[in-house]
Amino acid sequence: MNTNKGLEGVVAAETRLSMVDGQAGELIIGGFDVAELAMNATFEETVWLLWNGELAEDVSAFRAQLAERRVLPRATMELVRGCADARVSVMDALRMAAGTISLMEGDDALNLVATFPTIVASYWHLLNGREPIAPRGDLLHAANYLYMLSGELPDAERVRGMETYLNTVVDHGLSASTFTARVITSTESDLVSAITGALGAMKGPLHGGAPGPALDMVFEIGDASRAEEVLRRKIEAGEKLMGFGHRVYKVRDPRADVLAAAAERMFTRAGDMRLYELAKAVEATAIRLLEEYKPGRNLQTNVEFYTALLLHGLGLEVPLFTPTFSISRVAGWIAHCLEQRKDNRIIRPQSVYVGPRGHSYNRELCVR
Amino acid sequence: MNTNKGLEGVVAAETRLSMVDGQAGELIIGGFDVAELAMNATFEETVWLLWNGELAEDVSAFRAQLAERRVLPRATMELVRGCADARVSVMDALRMAAGTISLMEGDDALNLVATFPTIVASYWHLLNGREPIAPRGDLLHAANYLYMLSGELPDAERVRGMETYLNTVVDHGLSASTFTARVITSTESDLVSAITGALGAMKGPLHGGAPGPALDMVFEIGDASRAEEVLRRKIEAGEKLMGFGHRVYKVRDPRADVLAAAAERMFTRAGDMRLYELAKAVEATAIRLLEEYKPGRNLQTNVEFYTALLLHGLGLEVPLFTPTFSISRVAGWIAHCLEQRKDNRIIRPQSVYVGPRGHSYNRELCVR
Repeated sequence: MNTNKGLEGVVAAETRLSMVDGQAGELIIGGFDVAELAMNATFEETVWLLWNGELAEDVSAFRAQLAERRVLPRATMELVRGCADARVSVMDALRMAAGTISLMEGDDALNLVATFPTIVASYWHLLNGREPIAPRGDLLHAANYLYMLSGELPDAERVRGMETYLNTVVDHGLSASTFTARVITSTESDLVSAITGALGAMKGPLHGGAPGPALDMVFEIGDASRAEEVLRRKIEAGEKLMGFGHRVYKVRDPRADVLAAAAERMFTRAGDMRLYELAKAVEATAIRLLEEYKPGRNLQTNVEFYTALLLHGLGLEVPLFTPTFSISRVAGWIAHCLEQRKDNRIIRPQSVYVGPRGHSYNRELCVR
Repeated sequence: MNTNKGLEGVVAAETRLSMVDGQAGELIIGGFDVAELAMNATFEETVWLLWNGELAEDVSAFRAQLAERRVLPRATMELVRGCADARVSVMDALRMAAGTISLMEGDDALNLVATFPTIVASYWHLLNGREPIAPRGDLLHAANYLYMLSGELPDAERVRGMETYLNTVVDHGLSASTFTARVITSTESDLVSAITGALGAMKGPLHGGAPGPALDMVFEIGDASRAEEVLRRKIEAGEKLMGFGHRVYKVRDPRADVLAAAAERMFTRAGDMRLYELAKAVEATAIRLLEEYKPGRNLQTNVEFYTALLLHGLGLEVPLFTPTFSISRVAGWIAHCLEQRKDNRIIRPQSVYVGPRGHSYNRELCVR
């Protein structure tokens, strides 16, 4: 039997949560085209949809249940402070703190989704020498996250921008983190264990993505007139252009369109289109040059490019990008865990042994 | 393409760490037959073997490096105290505390192996209303664990019993927890993230096993003369006999032999063979009756049965059994992570979408 290290082409699950069609550039989430859902729903509605299979007629009770769980357990907040003393990355702090959500009473699924923004915003303030801002129970999930980050009530356009982002990246087939959550769940373990494992996978550079570098590249270019020169130099030096190309999508990532539209709306409203227009120019030049240097590869803008632009426009700094991705994706991970439980089988592939045999232990040879 | 939910028969890795031959009842660890290694090596020697591919000529420096890392970071010990306040399971406390080992300076692999016994023993004391016992740097890993549990220096026979146990269960092909660690590592994430995920999988009832119930059954029987009556009643009531049968091994689990021999030696030395002899009588009766009621199924004693007997003989209470398994297996998980890194490819199977399509969002229908 052949070894398939990446499990490529192996179908490990049937799911009703999302469908990624990389050839057609299509993403369905819970029955909706990603654009249809992302631009309209609140994040609470999207979470309910994934966990229940359809939109709620009345999501207000669910919204209230989430809102009342935003305050961290004392031991969790102490750990977040300990993380700030050690100056670990935001993703490490989120992983450690999320693991302790087992200390909360009640439903793990609600507790996890409700507390992720509090963990991230609290840690960000502590890391920057400020005290955390307490969550507000009267705000929607996305609005409260923006509020905890800035200390100011966000306007409707910014809330819509954050909701669109959170909805867009909430689920995406079997990513490595989602698969991790399902493997852990398949042993009949608990949700917090599964989500902590998924966060560990999300943190890896091959998974969590690199929206930060995509933004750095736009800033480095600085002016549309320099785009061609800078990008040519990068490509000729063999550098990868951050924000372009995707293992699955062979056409433009449908999430990039949704996020580009959200970014355009937000920057228009803010009255300063300079960064948005620079990014559009960089994108157009990058795609043209990639086709020139790597013809037929069809390298297109991926989700990271406009994630960076949108989250930057929302006032988030680069170290918050992957944690904010996790604030969304945790709802998708939980949905996969719930789905796995409904028709479970332990996920346990095989290994082949390629090592030595027949060694004997000779005590005299060893210094203990 | 067919969906393979359990990934059964799929070969996901080549490994030099261990080989499980369920038909022959054979287990090779790092080139050694499990009995040869388990009964002779110190745990430090076994860890070195797995991480380096061969026994060390001089393991004393490695032993010292582990010994000096036994004290927990302040934030970790605070979290362990918080776990005791919430009275979570020992496995949950171990998972949460292990996640915070990122707060320690230096090599994650050494830090993880070195601190697991301290976490487990400290939590066990706190949960029982006692203060933790500080680790001793002058003792071997297994001896120090027994010392931290009891507060007394263990005799050589008990240390040998614990080392034999730790060596026996240190690695076992791609278990669900080991696979979890490899999936997380495949994103280029860090060791603490991978091990925290693996602990989450180990905790699941379908994985971590149930040595506790196996012991309960022996105690319930109480006297060899009652074995047949009690076991017949259980089998006829459709109960599963805990400690018998294994998905992979179709003959006697080779680890059961190693642990039975270790238990016999330890109980002999202690001068009280009653429990050991009762267990042997229960085992013989169980195998005979299983063959009578389920002919051809060939249900044999598995590793859990003698794990329970040996760890009980070492003075460990039932809630410590799976955590003690983890104190051993963490070394195997790390070895798999290191092996995965050497020839990495992101592990990402596919899912098929079986949900609805073409839904449209109708804002008027919803109460927010």
